[in-house]
Amino acid sequence: MTPTSSQSALSTEVAVRLKRDPDGLVCAVVQQHDSGEVLMVGWMDDEALHRTLTSGRVTFWSRSRGEYWRKGDTSGHAQYVKTVALDCDGDALLVRVEQIGAACHTGARSCFDDHDLGAVEGHFVSELAHSELTPDE
Amino acid sequence: MTPTSSQSALSTEVAVRLKRDPDGLVCAVVQQHDSGEVLMVGWMDDEALHRTLTSGRVTFWSRSRGEYWRKGDTSGHAQYVKTVALDCDGDALLVRVEQIGAACHTGARSCFDDHDLGAVEGHFVSELAHSELTPDE
Repeated sequence: MTPTSSQSALSTEVAVRLKRDPDGLVCAVVQQHDSGEVLMVGWMDDEALHRTLTSGRVTFWSRSRGEYWRKGDTSGHAQYVKTVALDCDGDALLVRVEQIGAACHTGARSCFDDHDLGAVEGHFVSELAHSELTPDE
Repeated sequence: MTPTSSQSALSTEVAVRLKRDPDGLVCAVVQQHDSGEVLMVGWMDDEALHRTLTSGRVTFWSRSRGEYWRKGDTSGHAQYVKTVALDCDGDALLVRVEQIGAACHTGARSCFDDHDLGAVEGHFVSELAHSELTPDE
């Protein structure tokens, strides 16, 4: 089920900047405003973004349930909006919030907790830095 | 153009946990590992994730160009991997990196810089806290 963004009260100024996927959605990265912790990723259509921008509470479009979902209405784990920014090409939002309790439905603070994939770590080695360190060699 | 994830060397253990969109992609949130700054959102298919997990450098699938894109190969603004985590439902990645220079193609440090949407701020008012503050009223 896809949302009905054409009926949204989202301002035209913002709406024209959105680059939506085929279902009319953009992804929304939710970050705890003071700690910087990335809590979760959700999805918003125009109306979910309109509600998020104007109500002080974060609302998503639930792709699995096909309905709007104001975070915390059933769990109590609400997200209070601090700032919302759109990225340079209009297909992602950064929503900085005050998260009450756990952001994840599992009870974890973040949806990314305890799901590390064991990546090989990369290291920057500056050739310029090397040449500066050994100018005479 | 969609990627060809079926040919990826990504481990089965990770591959079975991914919940891909119709184009075979999951979104990847890139965060500066020490400051917590959210730098950008990109997209990965199985092969881009495999390269990111095993090479120490972040690789995306470019939806606009229809090709793999190792961040920094043309700009010099590479992303060195610190950790990669998958979220609870398998459709988003959190990639913590050391970002060299600007993450955004505009030259901005973050793709979310200077794109604030002017949201109304929300405030948590705890009824419990109120009752605790005025126990006798």
